[in-house]
Amino acid sequence: DVAYLRSVLPSTTEDAFFDYLATLDASEVTVTAVPEGSVVFARVPFLQVKGPLLVVQLLETTLLCLVNYASLVATNAARFRLLAGPDVKLMEMGLRRAQGPDGALSASKYSYIGGFDCTSNILAGKLYGIPHVQELPPLAGGEPVDLPSLAERWLQRDFQGLLDTYCVRRSGLPNFCAVALALHQLGYRAIGVRLDSGDLAQQSKEIRQVLRVCGAHFQVPWFETIPIAVSNDISEQSLEEFSREGSEINVIGVGTNLVTCPLQPSLGCVYKLVEVNGSPCLKLTEDEEKMTIPGTKTIYRLYDAAGHPFMDLMALEEEPSPSAGQELMVRVLGQLGETSKVVPTSVEPLHRTYFRDGQVCEPLPSLMEVRNHAQMSLSLLSPTHRRLHKPQPYPVAVTEKLHHLLTKLRQASQ
Amino acid sequence: DVAYLRSVLPSTTEDAFFDYLATLDASEVTVTAVPEGSVVFARVPFLQVKGPLLVVQLLETTLLCLVNYASLVATNAARFRLLAGPDVKLMEMGLRRAQGPDGALSASKYSYIGGFDCTSNILAGKLYGIPHVQELPPLAGGEPVDLPSLAERWLQRDFQGLLDTYCVRRSGLPNFCAVALALHQLGYRAIGVRLDSGDLAQQSKEIRQVLRVCGAHFQVPWFETIPIAVSNDISEQSLEEFSREGSEINVIGVGTNLVTCPLQPSLGCVYKLVEVNGSPCLKLTEDEEKMTIPGTKTIYRLYDAAGHPFMDLMALEEEPSPSAGQELMVRVLGQLGETSKVVPTSVEPLHRTYFRDGQVCEPLPSLMEVRNHAQMSLSLLSPTHRRLHKPQPYPVAVTEKLHHLLTKLRQASQ
Repeated sequence: DVAYLRSVLPSTTEDAFFDYLATLDASEVTVTAVPEGSVVFARVPFLQVKGPLLVVQLLETTLLCLVNYASLVATNAARFRLLAGPDVKLMEMGLRRAQGPDGALSASKYSYIGGFDCTSNILAGKLYGIPHVQELPPLAGGEPVDLPSLAERWLQRDFQGLLDTYCVRRSGLPNFCAVALALHQLGYRAIGVRLDSGDLAQQSKEIRQVLRVCGAHFQVPWFETIPIAVSNDISEQSLEEFSREGSEINVIGVGTNLVTCPLQPSLGCVYKLVEVNGSPCLKLTEDEEKMTIPGTKTIYRLYDAAGHPFMDLMALEEEPSPSAGQELMVRVLGQLGETSKVVPTSVEPLHRTYFRDGQVCEPLPSLMEVRNHAQMSLSLLSPTHRRLHKPQPYPVAVTEKLHHLLTKLRQASQ
Repeated sequence: DVAYLRSVLPSTTEDAFFDYLATLDASEVTVTAVPEGSVVFARVPFLQVKGPLLVVQLLETTLLCLVNYASLVATNAARFRLLAGPDVKLMEMGLRRAQGPDGALSASKYSYIGGFDCTSNILAGKLYGIPHVQELPPLAGGEPVDLPSLAERWLQRDFQGLLDTYCVRRSGLPNFCAVALALHQLGYRAIGVRLDSGDLAQQSKEIRQVLRVCGAHFQVPWFETIPIAVSNDISEQSLEEFSREGSEINVIGVGTNLVTCPLQPSLGCVYKLVEVNGSPCLKLTEDEEKMTIPGTKTIYRLYDAAGHPFMDLMALEEEPSPSAGQELMVRVLGQLGETSKVVPTSVEPLHRTYFRDGQVCEPLPSLMEVRNHAQMSLSLLSPTHRRLHKPQPYPVAVTEKLHHLLTKLRQASQ
């Protein structure tokens, strides 16, 4: 990298500068963060980086790049999970529409964290241990079925059939039933059917009915419970329609609308300077929303008696922790002019130190642990904050002391 | 990979299957394609892959993943270029909002091909040779300027100042002028200013006026031509506003709206079987748009007397090439029921063979060559096809012979 910079910077650049660049490392950097998978709210820092100014500036874009899309797609996945309910199996299948192979791997990984169950990306399975599902090539092409050869193809495993290559009712479903029943006699078991076009909810009900009748007629009890999978440009709206119309869908594959996040295609996390040489500082701007909260902060999540978080509170590092059951005076962002009193039933410090003096200093959780933590963190939210339509805004507040500092710094620089 | 598959497939899977997988390679695969950077139209194959069925099926998702986002973001970049006109410098700055580090590299590379001039991603500069621009940390924080130390920071290079950290007119611009004029006396030269908030077009005009007055007053002639760069959620709409209001903007940085393509967040290329063992086949479906065109095809682009392409024509591989100046009977997709007569002034075969028998067999163009080809390919389009608002649909046709095959296959399978 240094050699490259040497090749593009003017020849007048002093050698000492490149020598200096070569000495840079993260040995003096400390990173605190909320545990990966935690629900976070706007304006609350979820990562705090301390270290030599030049080094932490060099980390800015890298950290934002790693955090922004990951958080966005995990959040999008969590929304799909909330809409689908806990029982439906959600499959990520966005590989073909992601930003190249590695963008796709990020999508698989963070969709899994957000609550998806599996991916169609086998490499994500190999690299991250995410369960994956692959389907055999389409079943029903209108040609007569050569059963022995099919059986041979499926010799390795159970199978799922895609029903709507041509026409579900006239071709796909009858063919599937014939093949699945015949293979049943040879000892194989169909693990599902998939629909990829048309009115998915309606068709799922018709198919369930046919499977039920077939199962009863041929005395194959498991037949009526064959999972029905759907795909085809599934969006949040599709999931709402499924639940409104009722459906017999068991597995939902989401691709484009998961990985490209069309409802909000980007997340705008920022990385701001809040303290230099021990002195808190802030970004003054005429745009109130872009103003930063100065100083190194400790973040607390306050819980109510029902166990739901009701407020995130930023305090200066040197302030004592708020205590459970004790009344606090706080200032809520957006209405800083007035104080509010709150009494948390319990208090959770959100940040942990993950990296200190150039070393990871906290065991990093496995992907499965992160996924579980995300689901737990989401499930703790009060339904009024968690609902997708018109959720109640979650209050974020600062302590009186932090508010005082903010006011002082703002006045000092005017 | 084979070892991984062995670990996840059932233990009953025969060893011979894994041995077989290990023998797979692309030695029997042939790939023809339009040259990278060519304008392509819906329904026209831009890549044809021949080889053993199992191998080419394994390539499907990989090829789609590599092609979809690349084409999408290059197209999006080309739209920005069309709107910005040829003289404005366009900078890609989407690293923080892309799908992770490699998604960002894809964005930089294909935005460059689509007509951007440079990137803020230094790694893209290093890996692909794309020109990159990095800015120094903000200039005007409201604190007094320490000129010798600033000069030292800039000793290596010319500089650009970000004007609106606090307030453009009261702080950023006066500070910039003072610093730039002082450094001018020390032999340095400002290479630009950047605005990142507010009414960018209006401010650019005010700034140009101030630079002009300053340059005249202090007798620094180059001062009035200092490039003005803008950023801040720039979209196609922003560019339309700039040209409607008039502006003095010279450089435009586009991030989120370039790399996430919010107007159309994904491109849905597909990969379909058109011939098996020398017999053309087609995907029959009740959805006309999803029907494939059977057989191995040669694609011709037909040009009119003005040098604009006016039609893409698909022919069967064995058909003779259409000749310039000769009347052709064709069927336009979407109106297959009738024949049309066309007389091309010139005819261009679109595909070249890039990969044969496991080897790249055509020299691959450099990134710069691809970029030039893309701009050339776009510039050849007739303005009625190229315009962004309500472009005239570009006709795609098949030869009579191919239409005959299509009809025959469709009837045969009913």
